[in-house]
Amino acid sequence: MKKNVNIGIIGLGQIGSRLYKEILSKRKDIEIKTGKKINIISISAKNIRKKRSFSFSKKKFCKNPIEITKNSNVDIIFELIGLSDGISKKIVESALANKKHVVTANKALISKHGDYLSLLAEKNKVNLEFEAAVGGGIPILRTIKDGLATNKISKVIGILNGTCNYILSEMENTNESFSNVLKRAQKLGYAEPSNPKLDLNGYDALSKIRILSALSFNKRITKTNCLMNGIEDIDIDDIKMAKKLNFKIKLLGITEIINGKLFERVHPCLVKKKTYIANINGVMNAVILNGTPVGKSVLQGEGAGPGPTSSALMSDLLSILRGNIKYPFGIPNNKRKQIKSYDQKFYSNSFYLRFQVKDKPGVLLSITKAFAKNNISIKNLIQDPDKKNKKAFITIITHQNLEKNFNSLFKNLSKNKFLLKKPTSIRIEKE
Amino acid sequence: MKKNVNIGIIGLGQIGSRLYKEILSKRKDIEIKTGKKINIISISAKNIRKKRSFSFSKKKFCKNPIEITKNSNVDIIFELIGLSDGISKKIVESALANKKHVVTANKALISKHGDYLSLLAEKNKVNLEFEAAVGGGIPILRTIKDGLATNKISKVIGILNGTCNYILSEMENTNESFSNVLKRAQKLGYAEPSNPKLDLNGYDALSKIRILSALSFNKRITKTNCLMNGIEDIDIDDIKMAKKLNFKIKLLGITEIINGKLFERVHPCLVKKKTYIANINGVMNAVILNGTPVGKSVLQGEGAGPGPTSSALMSDLLSILRGNIKYPFGIPNNKRKQIKSYDQKFYSNSFYLRFQVKDKPGVLLSITKAFAKNNISIKNLIQDPDKKNKKAFITIITHQNLEKNFNSLFKNLSKNKFLLKKPTSIRIEKE
Repeated sequence: MKKNVNIGIIGLGQIGSRLYKEILSKRKDIEIKTGKKINIISISAKNIRKKRSFSFSKKKFCKNPIEITKNSNVDIIFELIGLSDGISKKIVESALANKKHVVTANKALISKHGDYLSLLAEKNKVNLEFEAAVGGGIPILRTIKDGLATNKISKVIGILNGTCNYILSEMENTNESFSNVLKRAQKLGYAEPSNPKLDLNGYDALSKIRILSALSFNKRITKTNCLMNGIEDIDIDDIKMAKKLNFKIKLLGITEIINGKLFERVHPCLVKKKTYIANINGVMNAVILNGTPVGKSVLQGEGAGPGPTSSALMSDLLSILRGNIKYPFGIPNNKRKQIKSYDQKFYSNSFYLRFQVKDKPGVLLSITKAFAKNNISIKNLIQDPDKKNKKAFITIITHQNLEKNFNSLFKNLSKNKFLLKKPTSIRIEKE
Repeated sequence: MKKNVNIGIIGLGQIGSRLYKEILSKRKDIEIKTGKKINIISISAKNIRKKRSFSFSKKKFCKNPIEITKNSNVDIIFELIGLSDGISKKIVESALANKKHVVTANKALISKHGDYLSLLAEKNKVNLEFEAAVGGGIPILRTIKDGLATNKISKVIGILNGTCNYILSEMENTNESFSNVLKRAQKLGYAEPSNPKLDLNGYDALSKIRILSALSFNKRITKTNCLMNGIEDIDIDDIKMAKKLNFKIKLLGITEIINGKLFERVHPCLVKKKTYIANINGVMNAVILNGTPVGKSVLQGEGAGPGPTSSALMSDLLSILRGNIKYPFGIPNNKRKQIKSYDQKFYSNSFYLRFQVKDKPGVLLSITKAFAKNNISIKNLIQDPDKKNKKAFITIITHQNLEKNFNSLFKNLSKNKFLLKKPTSIRIEKE
């Protein structure tokens, strides 16, 4: 790479603006570390007139971002719009095809089109870097590709969505309802004000798990559906009951190889209060990797926000300025495996279940019968009567059993006339 | 770098042996990831006949390790002997001078001669990598150089010595004495059987803190003395008392910039039970970094042993195989700063103090007078009489004050005729 390197930034929201200022303030440091002089020569954003905390020469502004990707003077492009398709995809495609290195924070794009785009990067002999797409400031992708290179990773567990973790932590601390805490999260900027669904339903965490999975197991990104539950149905009573039972509720993303097959999933979990993962609170993110020969490695840090994200973007920039061309997923695309999906039916775990039932004789019998019928044994059972409303709550912690047996249990229970609503079921995860 | 890369391994103890096998088993993986075919063509160890868990062709064995460093067919040399000077230094010097890349796990060597050796590597345009020297399997050096590159790091706190952390955790769990637990640690291979001093007195942790410091603050390695206390004087009564007061005792390595000056230190600390660092138990290592813009980052993992160490050595190997020549400390040697030392006298913290005193009237008065005289105010005071032996224990938690006032307090107290032995003093660290 030549000594003077020119940069284009597309997208000047919170992240893009912070990055712009970060690059300007670190130019000298970057020159010392890499020997390269960098210049931001072109930028693009929706609105040139929007009030920003920095000024830029209007000559640098380019209304059509695709033009930047074709500008022969630009060497590296930051894509910071964040769509899974549309203009984001077009920008990255065109940039790579025009032999520009690309840095993006876009987990939606990478988890959907990462295989195709990394192949495009490989063909055009340029870098495609996306450290900021997973875990914010935690350099987790680089750690898997470089720091733990050649380790055989068997399992990755992560708290990957700060919005969900904040909501669950706050519910636990304040005993307030999901909807109240969500409103506060929106006010504080921890949840999207208009449509927080993609955070709350697990989709965001699943995108990140798929990227982690691809890197950890040297495989292509999974396209098929898999277990994805969000936190929208977690009731404050579940949080309180979990607390009583010495658990916390966390939204975990998990990917592991079981008997040579891949099991990727995102769902709320009960985790023992004393475990490491239970103590990651608020908007923090954390990732636990099991590898051989390294053993268990843990990385924790701020998962979102302009500061941590621009830290990750800058590490990508330095990687490009310092190094040779690298494979976006650590190995050549034609060596990346397809791993068959593990059949969830055969996964064995224990469940936390909470039932809201009519307070009538025979209720407990009818429920325990359903358990017996499906060969699921009960570890703890707690009954809380609510005499005033003529109902009761039954909480059950089960022993381990196959998911298929639980499915059949849930089917049986759905016909139970004593049940006032669909039971809550949360998997118990041993860290 | 050419496609076929030849490796020499010097030192075939636990680490060298594991690395040898690891390299053989990962050759294909390495070729996929880096495009390089690697071969171990030369090895050296004290004793060719020692029983090993693998066999090698005697032709590869070289009695004099310096010969390997001069072998024109060797491209990369692993130095795994581990001395701070002597043959280890000669091997690394000769290898670099002969334009071989060097990988070492030797923290004693790097913390003592790292500046000189990195300059030698830079001059000869080869790599000198030492990820395994700090934090075992935790890729902490690479994280600072790459993952958090361009962050301004202000403070690093670490549990960097597994032996000490194991002993302190075990004392807490079993209520056994330091010497009993040390014996167990030696049996289990967690402490050196013959001379565990360099672990216990803080020297090992200090070597690592100095390397972390150099990388975090882009500075030369500190040569001057600094605060270094070990855990040899920690009594089981201190552990118990700390527990009562909701603290744990940990040996921490800390480096930070205070008003533009450098404060490096290793000493036991009382840390609040609920903090992250208090919950790193057993032989685990952990590092907490405060940086801008990333915020707080935490890395945790196994700190020693052949598995984690060979994971780190392999990451160094891949870094060499994949990349260009890198600066061993992230920036050119002539840009690395000298930072003046912070004067410890002006450091402000609070202390845990435990006194063993005669059970006589006036004792408490004479002690509290000494505190008043030095303007140190007391936050908690607990008196435990031991009537049978006509003595008492007084435990004091102080408010924050300057180290120089504490020094003067200790001087005053040393003359106190009621004191049966030198008081125990442990700093309280707010995470």
